[in-house]
Amino acid sequence: VETSSAIQALVVTLDLLGTFAFAISGASAGIHKRLDIFGVLVLAFVAATFGGIARDLLIGAVPPAALTNVYYLVTALVAGIATFLWFPKIEKRQSPVLVFDAIGLSFFVAAGTQKALAFGIDPVMAAILGMLTGIGGGVMRDLLVAQVPAILRTDFYAVAALAGASVIVIGDAVGFRPEACALAGGALCLVLRLMAIRYGWRLPASRPDQNPDAP
Amino acid sequence: VETSSAIQALVVTLDLLGTFAFAISGASAGIHKRLDIFGVLVLAFVAATFGGIARDLLIGAVPPAALTNVYYLVTALVAGIATFLWFPKIEKRQSPVLVFDAIGLSFFVAAGTQKALAFGIDPVMAAILGMLTGIGGGVMRDLLVAQVPAILRTDFYAVAALAGASVIVIGDAVGFRPEACALAGGALCLVLRLMAIRYGWRLPASRPDQNPDAP
Amino acid sequence: VETSSAIQALVVTLDLLGTFAFAISGASAGIHKRLDIFGVLVLAFVAATFGGIARDLLIGAVPPAALTNVYYLVTALVAGIATFLWFPKIEKRQSPVLVFDAIGLSFFVAAGTQKALAFGIDPVMAAILGMLTGIGGGVMRDLLVAQVPAILRTDFYAVAALAGASVIVIGDAVGFRPEACALAGGALCLVLRLMAIRYGWRLPASRPDQNPDAP
Repeated sequence: VETSSAIQALVVTLDLLGTFAFAISGASAGIHKRLDIFGVLVLAFVAATFGGIARDLLIGAVPPAALTNVYYLVTALVAGIATFLWFPKIEKRQSPVLVFDAIGLSFFVAAGTQKALAFGIDPVMAAILGMLTGIGGGVMRDLLVAQVPAILRTDFYAVAALAGASVIVIGDAVGFRPEACALAGGALCLVLRLMAIRYGWRLPASRPDQNPDAP
Repeated sequence: VETSSAIQALVVTLDLLGTFAFAISGASAGIHKRLDIFGVLVLAFVAATFGGIARDLLIGAVPPAALTNVYYLVTALVAGIATFLWFPKIEKRQSPVLVFDAIGLSFFVAAGTQKALAFGIDPVMAAILGMLTGIGGGVMRDLLVAQVPAILRTDFYAVAALAGASVIVIGDAVGFRPEACALAGGALCLVLRLMAIRYGWRLPASRPDQNPDAP
Repeated sequence: VETSSAIQALVVTLDLLGTFAFAISGASAGIHKRLDIFGVLVLAFVAATFGGIARDLLIGAVPPAALTNVYYLVTALVAGIATFLWFPKIEKRQSPVLVFDAIGLSFFVAAGTQKALAFGIDPVMAAILGMLTGIGGGVMRDLLVAQVPAILRTDFYAVAALAGASVIVIGDAVGFRPEACALAGGALCLVLRLMAIRYGWRLPASRPDQNPDAP
């Protein structure tokens, strides 16, 4: 068999872990904005799934996977309810949440890039769509609470996603096996993101010399 | 005949009434933000149709119904122009607008859930999509004026939509006729929403114990 | 031959010019909000392509053209990097940027309307989709920096787009050749927009007599 059941179990575990971590970030954003429990759960689900939904809409894979596999919904709801109930405790444990989030990002980027390639998207755009799969949920989470997406503003986050996705499409073009490409790209994304968290890496921000309308 | 012309006329009437009420809510939001007449009409159309458009994109029903039946556009424009011209009077009559809005919500939820089921979406997600049909327009209306969607924040609105949609998918799974399911689900949604308006029902809001960044 | 290579070269040039101008507007918005270089490039790409992407999703043309022709991405990135590097200089040259933007708007509206008609969308909605092609990028640009879209608020912009698109669908219905319709519609849009810039045309804004919540 090409994919052993051990690998399949790992893939499912990583996917659920990523969904869970992203849902926590969504629920936390909702709680900070004092949404009601319903709004908090919506943000949990959106943060966990919107990246994949946007990718699926753009490549024509409808209905999106997040709407056909009900376990994404269940995972996001469990994470959202847990965050609602134990918010102060979860707020204090930012480090593990960030690590889970980095794992989720890496997994989503690898899976998203592979899916785009499988749908015949050309390499450059497959890398962009892989990155979108990873960051889309966070962008929509921030839009729903009327904030400029943090990913666009301050963090070495999307670049890690893009680097991982690029490795995958290059490996695919060269002719490596999909599993090897996904592993290498996901690992690069994870390492870059964890180092960015550890060392506080940031991209250069823009410095408008006139008319600044942001604080 | 399975559906009498009287029922068909009722369905069209409810659909138009809902579109009209949602368009008023969109136009009112635009006027509060001092948009120009064009912006007000865009908000009227978006509030009235975005829920259905999002559902149609997600289930692969393109082009969406709101773009192929021109009477949605006409209804939304009439409502938008009327709101623009007689805004203070309409503002004073919030009760009838809220009742129309509740009727529209119920109708959109019932129609949206049925359409999702008809496209083979599984029951849990069909209920979510039915709810999305009802609330999507209001969410996008608020995003376009750069506000956190009211539906996520304060109101017993989406829960009424979800309850109605759930009745429909359960009835469908049990084997009841679609018309009966739609009627029961729509009625439940309407009753819950009207009681929520009447008695001021709200969901528990989240209470962040630290770092509150919302007023 | 029906389309000479000179016309084809003109079409490509206009398309690139429009993409470039829209990308500058996106990058400038990102710089004003002090986004990092990645965020600035995302805004450049989104402002340049989102109108066409939204249209393509709505008419079922997936994957959207902006994701299959890599030159849109390259043009947007070049414009974004140039804006990031030479922002103060570009800020001072608003007039040429506005003229390029008007050219891009006209081109996008003409191309978008034609594409919607080619996909069998009925005339009224094809005009709306043509307008959406022209203004969608600017709307999403503003949403991503958490602002009410300027197009909805202050400017004689969308009306120029709608007028041009309307000429195209009317011409198409009458039976004129597509090239003639596109030329007439695009020219009307361009002239209206340039006159609006020159003479400061605006639509009447709404004046809420009570509860104004906007400054």
